[in-house]
Amino acid sequence: MKAVVYQEPFRVVVEDVDAPAIQHPDDVVVRVTSTAICGSDLHMYEGRTAAQSGIVFGHENLGVVEELGSGVSSLQRGDRVVMPFNVACGFCKNCMSGDTAFCLTVNPGFAGGAYGYVSMGPYLGGQAEYLRVPYADFNCLKLPDDTSKEKDYVLLADIFPTGYHGCELARVGPGESVAVFGAGPVGLMAAYSAMLRGAAKVFCVDRVPERLDKAREIGAVPVDFTRGDPAEQIREQTGGEGTDKGVDAVGYQAQDIGGEGEQPAVVLNELIETVRPTGRIGVPGLYVPADPGGPDEQSRHGMLLVSVGRMFEKGQVIGTGQCNVKRYNRQLRDLITEGRAEPSFVVSHELPISEAPEAYRKFDQRVEGYTKVVLHP
Amino acid sequence: MKAVVYQEPFRVVVEDVDAPAIQHPDDVVVRVTSTAICGSDLHMYEGRTAAQSGIVFGHENLGVVEELGSGVSSLQRGDRVVMPFNVACGFCKNCMSGDTAFCLTVNPGFAGGAYGYVSMGPYLGGQAEYLRVPYADFNCLKLPDDTSKEKDYVLLADIFPTGYHGCELARVGPGESVAVFGAGPVGLMAAYSAMLRGAAKVFCVDRVPERLDKAREIGAVPVDFTRGDPAEQIREQTGGEGTDKGVDAVGYQAQDIGGEGEQPAVVLNELIETVRPTGRIGVPGLYVPADPGGPDEQSRHGMLLVSVGRMFEKGQVIGTGQCNVKRYNRQLRDLITEGRAEPSFVVSHELPISEAPEAYRKFDQRVEGYTKVVLHP
Amino acid sequence: MKAVVYQEPFRVVVEDVDAPAIQHPDDVVVRVTSTAICGSDLHMYEGRTAAQSGIVFGHENLGVVEELGSGVSSLQRGDRVVMPFNVACGFCKNCMSGDTAFCLTVNPGFAGGAYGYVSMGPYLGGQAEYLRVPYADFNCLKLPDDTSKEKDYVLLADIFPTGYHGCELARVGPGESVAVFGAGPVGLMAAYSAMLRGAAKVFCVDRVPERLDKAREIGAVPVDFTRGDPAEQIREQTGGEGTDKGVDAVGYQAQDIGGEGEQPAVVLNELIETVRPTGRIGVPGLYVPADPGGPDEQSRHGMLLVSVGRMFEKGQVIGTGQCNVKRYNRQLRDLITEGRAEPSFVVSHELPISEAPEAYRKFDQRVEGYTKVVLHP
Amino acid sequence: MKAVVYQEPFRVVVEDVDAPAIQHPDDVVVRVTSTAICGSDLHMYEGRTAAQSGIVFGHENLGVVEELGSGVSSLQRGDRVVMPFNVACGFCKNCMSGDTAFCLTVNPGFAGGAYGYVSMGPYLGGQAEYLRVPYADFNCLKLPDDTSKEKDYVLLADIFPTGYHGCELARVGPGESVAVFGAGPVGLMAAYSAMLRGAAKVFCVDRVPERLDKAREIGAVPVDFTRGDPAEQIREQTGGEGTDKGVDAVGYQAQDIGGEGEQPAVVLNELIETVRPTGRIGVPGLYVPADPGGPDEQSRHGMLLVSVGRMFEKGQVIGTGQCNVKRYNRQLRDLITEGRAEPSFVVSHELPISEAPEAYRKFDQRVEGYTKVVLHP
Repeated sequence: MKAVVYQEPFRVVVEDVDAPAIQHPDDVVVRVTSTAICGSDLHMYEGRTAAQSGIVFGHENLGVVEELGSGVSSLQRGDRVVMPFNVACGFCKNCMSGDTAFCLTVNPGFAGGAYGYVSMGPYLGGQAEYLRVPYADFNCLKLPDDTSKEKDYVLLADIFPTGYHGCELARVGPGESVAVFGAGPVGLMAAYSAMLRGAAKVFCVDRVPERLDKAREIGAVPVDFTRGDPAEQIREQTGGEGTDKGVDAVGYQAQDIGGEGEQPAVVLNELIETVRPTGRIGVPGLYVPADPGGPDEQSRHGMLLVSVGRMFEKGQVIGTGQCNVKRYNRQLRDLITEGRAEPSFVVSHELPISEAPEAYRKFDQRVEGYTKVVLHP
Repeated sequence: MKAVVYQEPFRVVVEDVDAPAIQHPDDVVVRVTSTAICGSDLHMYEGRTAAQSGIVFGHENLGVVEELGSGVSSLQRGDRVVMPFNVACGFCKNCMSGDTAFCLTVNPGFAGGAYGYVSMGPYLGGQAEYLRVPYADFNCLKLPDDTSKEKDYVLLADIFPTGYHGCELARVGPGESVAVFGAGPVGLMAAYSAMLRGAAKVFCVDRVPERLDKAREIGAVPVDFTRGDPAEQIREQTGGEGTDKGVDAVGYQAQDIGGEGEQPAVVLNELIETVRPTGRIGVPGLYVPADPGGPDEQSRHGMLLVSVGRMFEKGQVIGTGQCNVKRYNRQLRDLITEGRAEPSFVVSHELPISEAPEAYRKFDQRVEGYTKVVLHP
Repeated sequence: MKAVVYQEPFRVVVEDVDAPAIQHPDDVVVRVTSTAICGSDLHMYEGRTAAQSGIVFGHENLGVVEELGSGVSSLQRGDRVVMPFNVACGFCKNCMSGDTAFCLTVNPGFAGGAYGYVSMGPYLGGQAEYLRVPYADFNCLKLPDDTSKEKDYVLLADIFPTGYHGCELARVGPGESVAVFGAGPVGLMAAYSAMLRGAAKVFCVDRVPERLDKAREIGAVPVDFTRGDPAEQIREQTGGEGTDKGVDAVGYQAQDIGGEGEQPAVVLNELIETVRPTGRIGVPGLYVPADPGGPDEQSRHGMLLVSVGRMFEKGQVIGTGQCNVKRYNRQLRDLITEGRAEPSFVVSHELPISEAPEAYRKFDQRVEGYTKVVLHP
Repeated sequence: MKAVVYQEPFRVVVEDVDAPAIQHPDDVVVRVTSTAICGSDLHMYEGRTAAQSGIVFGHENLGVVEELGSGVSSLQRGDRVVMPFNVACGFCKNCMSGDTAFCLTVNPGFAGGAYGYVSMGPYLGGQAEYLRVPYADFNCLKLPDDTSKEKDYVLLADIFPTGYHGCELARVGPGESVAVFGAGPVGLMAAYSAMLRGAAKVFCVDRVPERLDKAREIGAVPVDFTRGDPAEQIREQTGGEGTDKGVDAVGYQAQDIGGEGEQPAVVLNELIETVRPTGRIGVPGLYVPADPGGPDEQSRHGMLLVSVGRMFEKGQVIGTGQCNVKRYNRQLRDLITEGRAEPSFVVSHELPISEAPEAYRKFDQRVEGYTKVVLHP
């Protein structure tokens, strides 16, 4: 089958690889119909991880069940399903608590597994014609047969729940004010989720005009950080108080506000300043314990200078970590199905899988409006 | 009246000051019968704050209502009451949410007020014969008339709720394992609270043999950090996994594990290593945004090097801040009254107020078993 | 001053009564500018309570602070404020927990007080030119000066938070399905609140076409119970499963589905049938322990036949009780202020207070579209 | 193999039946070493259910894994395991939320399955030499190899978690007062769990002296309902206020307080009287939608007269339903393992399986101290 295969930094190819087969009674094989490129794929693409040549990319996958293991109970051939990017077993301690991003079974020695991602276990990615899904009863979410909302549903694999997770970590509730840092796809999904959860006022901080425009379109207040300290801009618009909650949808590759390269803790520290005493900060944006490309020795080991003194003085809570997609994807699916959510406004391109190499290149360079690409194998 | 007055670093005196009077209809004046010296009083005593000469110390106060403002509804002359160290109004947004440590009314321009503490508002301390209590209906907790448990009840002003708050921030629940760093009075109260909340296994990390003995006596597992990395010691005793939860009862004046002076973030980072993926860390231990005595430029501004990468990888949540005493003191009082909790095991000395200068000196030097002193004016 | 005074069943008059004065340092007197008639006023109006002649009605009050007691801290003359229908002290055990509808101070011997309501304490109602507000710092919620949304803000006194409370008792969350029984003002507010909280699908059950139309207008699915058992109608529209959550916005004066008079438990039992296993039911609709007009001996003592067997089999949770307005009114105010909520769609009439007698008559008879009347003194 | 088989009302026999075999890749077969008789087995034993002759009893099972299906991931031959009485799949909507007592997969057409119980699916009971466990990775909880606490661990299958579930439904927290109605095995486990969760004061209501003695031994306050209305007795011991929380560990076969036969709603209504305004009531005690032996027509259909008026006036919450064992059994296991809980104080007899018929007879008649019997096949 055709698959998107990583070769070396800044180079993926579409080539023939062996199609996956059932390996365990609880597996299914899914024929992929939509699979999105994720910002986190670019970490590997840019060579800033330990990813080796030959890995098949793709953790945002939607398709049709093609083959079933003998132990699968709840699925049938032909079912349309979307899979969380996390591979999870469903029965370990963490899965039991809903912390499916930290499954203790699927990636021995580490808490958490994923498809097509370095160090996340032996699971091939879904930017391919077929995908093997382990523990399929647990990992497949059934979708309506109607394909007209496929572009929305495919976002259930990662970025819609991930944005929502930021709001959940921050416990965003009705009537609250929220500052979302980052208005890329995840940041927009966080802002959109905050609205869905009833927030009264949502700020979106970024510097890219197109992103800020999108934020405005969904009802958020855009804050351009090149025009002045964002914490200050937001305090001015909240009677000097700051917001109730905050979401970091940027992570460690944050750009210095002054524009002088990466400054990995800048968003965290800005959030500590932006959020009012007693507030909470949700961090779905990625931080890593080892970053060979970090700007200094300490950040290369994931050690960042954080204003702990201010955070304590304000009595803030910071919640972090990858999204437990399975905790939210059913409810978010139902919002899409009922027409109450339409997250596909972030999708900029739908392309055949053959154009993946080009798509990666353009997405990596953020050219021609490439913000979120969905591939169709 | 007699009061304990700060004069200069390492020097307090007992001298005559004006007795307080009712200033507002909702005030009461309390005749203080027990008032404890707190570890945080030592920050001022040692001259590591901006505290000026003349300040009356004392935020852990218990006594008898002597005089009432015309607006007070729920108290009567002669009522025995204990006051949270936080002064709070009861009606601002934060008090309404139970976040009484972050009251927006009592200390304008800052979220939170306290008795007898630098920068915490104009409230004289209670290491004195009398204490004015504002918003008395809100700030006084009534006690049974029986004085036999006064030594327990006085701990409701601060350290028992503060230790408990650490467990609440970490959401310690029945059957869980917890690592408490610091086995001073607050750490022991945190460990004791974890037991009360049904924890299955509580570790207490310290290096002082007497403290570790106390920890053992209440059923906790003592961990002596001079015998090896505490995170490693604890992982060994938890099947390699680490604990479900952690509490930082040390704060920014943490001592380097290797014993080479202060290392303000060492406890936070040890907790990130100690607590398992998906775990939570409660931080009642004090961190400050400005510490003139900090070991380096950044820590002097409250900026600490934190292993954010590991924290994110493990999906941990960190909750911080001073204790909202009022949120817990009634329930903890009832545990004492019913004989289910006896926190006074941490009290080492009961002394007349005239001995305060000596008590401060010895407590500061941790000599002769001075761990927790209760003064009786 | 002019006030709406109850005289006898089906008769209120507007007459001169003594204007209220400050009685306690924490009181304010508010000049009322908007005050709504509530469905629960009709219980008294119809003579189905022990209300005596002479009582001034009105618990949904908004106005301007005119006079302040000497203890009031946070308000100034001229402040525009809306008051929860509950009178609450702010410092008792229940107020501390946010359960302000069950204040233990303001109505001795009973948990909870209100303005202008039989058995709810000595507080005159606000269908009058002036209103005394006790514990004013706690009971007044400040509003923006702009009066253009007064019709929305006045609903913060009762029905908007009460509808929201139904959703809170049922823990309605994003992506869920909800059945709201009753599409009167409170039911519509419950449905509207469910949408604000992100529900995926909201059903509104009633039989009055105008109400069902309003429900449709706000995005809910109307269910006309005269066309068949509502539980069945809803199961059909939820794949046979029923809804995740339910809200009873009707209470004990429920009409039999077959139309044969009152059947006080019919809504509760329909909800038990409608809501799926593990679901929750919120009951803001009023049930009373003594109802002289009840259809049988047992219901006259508040004893109703409930399908406890089914409820247990389904593992449902039922939460009841009057709304703790203060727990939600600030957040809901902010939704109105930011233009994210506009609850005034339920207001049918705005009238001068002189027309109160006529308004009561028509509202009681549900004629001429009288669904929610706001009086302006 | 030998198994306890129901023949007709008041008659079980130990006879040879076919040993179970692996039927699905996710099954295991467990060699049972301990299996307890449950109070709910007596409903079938007494002929008050639709149970047919031939059913193998036993849903409280502990044993050693003997045979594994090809899909089982986390277990090995020889593992010691205890199984929740609920059979659950681990991947349906309800299991995902932790509501494993309401699994939608294992008993089609009904929410929830169990071993050896009428209408709870095709799962043979474990009062036998061997037991087939479906979805074994999800349903088996591993135990330490040491068998000295087997008597404690076997209670993890049902009654320890069920008592704990009562406290969870009532949200019993540290420092609270709780009234537990019923001091049989589940009631004692509820009281014991309340203590573990830090309750300040626990009342146990019953009339059997031995049970009340047991309650006293674990630190609860016994209340003998034959000496006066229990709600009143408890109010007297709580300053007239009632308790914060309540647990119904009796269910529908409640005895009239006056001793005149069954009165199915008496415990619910007593709890509504006993628990203070804003309180919560947990109902793990069984109520059924069809009870052929009910005292009147309505109770035979599970319709009971409940004081809804009082419940609403007090703003109470009632949570019901069978225990989701899997939600708690790991944490409770750890309390046993660490020596912090020893629930086996309720076990009165340990017997070989051959004595099951005699044990059933005596347990049913509550003779010779038969309160909780553990059988060893």
